[in-house]
Amino acid sequence: MLTVGERAREASRAMSRAETGAKNGALLGIADALQDKTQALLADNRKDLEAGRQRGLDSAMLDRLELTEKGIAAMAQGLREVAALPDPVGEITDLSYRPSGIQVGRMRVPLGVIGIIYESRPNVTADAAALCLKSGNACILRGGSEAIHSNKAIADCIREGLEQGGLPRDAVQLIETTDRAAVGELIRMERHVDVIVPRGGKSLIERISEESRIPVIKHLDGICHVYIDDRCDFDKAIQVALNAKTQRYGVCNAMETLLIAAPVAPILLPDLAHLYREKGVELRGCPRTLRILPDCIPATEEDWGTEYLAPILSIRVVEGLDEALDHINRHGSQHTDAIVTEDYTRARRFLREVDSSSVMVNASTRFADGYEYGLGAEIGISTNKLHARGPVGLEGLTTRKFIVLGDGHIRT
Amino acid sequence: MLTVGERAREASRAMSRAETGAKNGALLGIADALQDKTQALLADNRKDLEAGRQRGLDSAMLDRLELTEKGIAAMAQGLREVAALPDPVGEITDLSYRPSGIQVGRMRVPLGVIGIIYESRPNVTADAAALCLKSGNACILRGGSEAIHSNKAIADCIREGLEQGGLPRDAVQLIETTDRAAVGELIRMERHVDVIVPRGGKSLIERISEESRIPVIKHLDGICHVYIDDRCDFDKAIQVALNAKTQRYGVCNAMETLLIAAPVAPILLPDLAHLYREKGVELRGCPRTLRILPDCIPATEEDWGTEYLAPILSIRVVEGLDEALDHINRHGSQHTDAIVTEDYTRARRFLREVDSSSVMVNASTRFADGYEYGLGAEIGISTNKLHARGPVGLEGLTTRKFIVLGDGHIRT
Repeated sequence: MLTVGERAREASRAMSRAETGAKNGALLGIADALQDKTQALLADNRKDLEAGRQRGLDSAMLDRLELTEKGIAAMAQGLREVAALPDPVGEITDLSYRPSGIQVGRMRVPLGVIGIIYESRPNVTADAAALCLKSGNACILRGGSEAIHSNKAIADCIREGLEQGGLPRDAVQLIETTDRAAVGELIRMERHVDVIVPRGGKSLIERISEESRIPVIKHLDGICHVYIDDRCDFDKAIQVALNAKTQRYGVCNAMETLLIAAPVAPILLPDLAHLYREKGVELRGCPRTLRILPDCIPATEEDWGTEYLAPILSIRVVEGLDEALDHINRHGSQHTDAIVTEDYTRARRFLREVDSSSVMVNASTRFADGYEYGLGAEIGISTNKLHARGPVGLEGLTTRKFIVLGDGHIRT
Repeated sequence: MLTVGERAREASRAMSRAETGAKNGALLGIADALQDKTQALLADNRKDLEAGRQRGLDSAMLDRLELTEKGIAAMAQGLREVAALPDPVGEITDLSYRPSGIQVGRMRVPLGVIGIIYESRPNVTADAAALCLKSGNACILRGGSEAIHSNKAIADCIREGLEQGGLPRDAVQLIETTDRAAVGELIRMERHVDVIVPRGGKSLIERISEESRIPVIKHLDGICHVYIDDRCDFDKAIQVALNAKTQRYGVCNAMETLLIAAPVAPILLPDLAHLYREKGVELRGCPRTLRILPDCIPATEEDWGTEYLAPILSIRVVEGLDEALDHINRHGSQHTDAIVTEDYTRARRFLREVDSSSVMVNASTRFADGYEYGLGAEIGISTNKLHARGPVGLEGLTTRKFIVLGDGHIRT
């Protein structure tokens, strides 16, 4: 593992000064290799699927593990899209003269070496490598042991692309041992790794955050709220509340709790309940909700702090904006929260006073996503406050250093 | 301690939405209180000095501990300068329309609660509180036990100012117990504290970084280099190399190792050595340096990785830019490094390829400082790569959230 780290650090130096054209050449080379080797990739993937079935993996797990021709084409397309993004490295901003005569500015630079720890989906191997590569970083990938054959095959394509771009092959290293101790070593190599990005279930992320000696860009809970204000447009309220819950269930930016102002609750909740039930969403309500929707299951205190990731929604009637803000600050996870209102001052207050990575007015929480935000690609959504907050694209894999230009200036 | 944390979290909510005028009012109120109570502050400070003398603190420590009328006036002036800085909170940038119709931007927001752990200097109490307050954060201050009377007196002035600005008095809390266990608790309250800023000796910072469960904005080594290229202007080279070492010795941005290109070493080193020796700087050289400066002490491998913080300089003759870059990457601490050259391409390469928080061309490393960079004030210099890198001002105590403005938009 230490050798892996040393080689990554060495490669990161070359990567940090690699020209944009070389990096793009490598990305396109990887995309071509993936498509050229589709059949071989599928064959390697079948080995993983078979082993998984024998080990008794459940069907959801096998689903995530499976590669298809279409999936491989999408992976290649993703690489081409990353190649088309602007290169963030080397960008100089804020360059200005100081009274002393020196010129001070900031230059965007790669983080260095990024360790990515993920579970079953083999496409993460290509996606994560692409983002690290374009942002001038070296990376060490540690995928799930159940996907080892697929990951190795994808890593071969990556190496081919790197060589085509004239970049060091150690810029992307896959840890091929399935020994669990390797993860423990990876997150303790602070001299060789600059940041850890865990992708997977909450328990994986929690364990890594706790044990890592290296900063972790992490995603924990997504307990997202929509607050329907009494000064809202009813159609917008129903559209946004329905979309935020039902467009997809198992995602971090889906609404888990609906807050609704008392004056409009009796008008909107019956219609909303009807629409939710048509989609099979189970409703759990506060006592005031139950008075309007008697069929509702009573919500417990625990419901307000639960990320269902399922067709379940808790509903709470609040007096107005202040109570909604209080609820969100108390029970939310600072991920994504939205207000539906036509009131200028309340919209402005909500934007300022909700301390979440994404705060929205009259839009569905489902928009909290790197692609929707125009980042071009996304390594994940960060619930950290420091460094990258919210969807993390190329910029989140870089940092800024100060540059000073002088003419023999000295400090007096 | 838990109560302190809860009260800080509560106060941070009010602080995050506090108007700029209220924050400035508080800062000016604290400045006035400090000046009005100068005599009382000096009396409290004398208690600390007396206790320190009895405990046998050395004179450097007592020096740092001592408040003077002039020092108190400077503290008050610092607060007024922070009041005059622009308020970073609420700044909205990058707001643009996406193809889906939503408008996406970023809003600068406070980090929340900042824990500051520092040693003897009582002025940190006022300086740190001012930066946290202006950036909309609540803070918990833990000063050295040897300065407890001085810190308490300053904290009283801070409370007075907060009340004057109509801000919660818990926005700045001083931990008054001198129990060492309090620090251990503070750095583990991840639910109530968002970032820890340790200020003091390296051993304090290392211990806190290791034990903290909260992200730490920290400053470790400052092993700074000046590389004199063979295509340099001789006068600039001598000026910069002299200033970087001798303008002050005990500071993190002083040069510790001089690298010089072989072709100019015989021309420049004798003059430089003469100037350094006039200032009483001890020189330690590589074998090639010794051939030019036979009186020099031979440098050991350890010298290249040592932050002297003293009138000692190690000197190494290198073939040229590549060897200089290699030395800096191998032995440096990624703090501040400078090149002296008139060569366009080498200047450009040095700026891009040196991975330090400050990289300079033809300027003294001593410029690496928040005031010199125009940040207005500085909570410290960060050697972290993530979040804040280099001098940290108000901006480093904030983060950015995404904001989304829609008109009932939903994701399809």
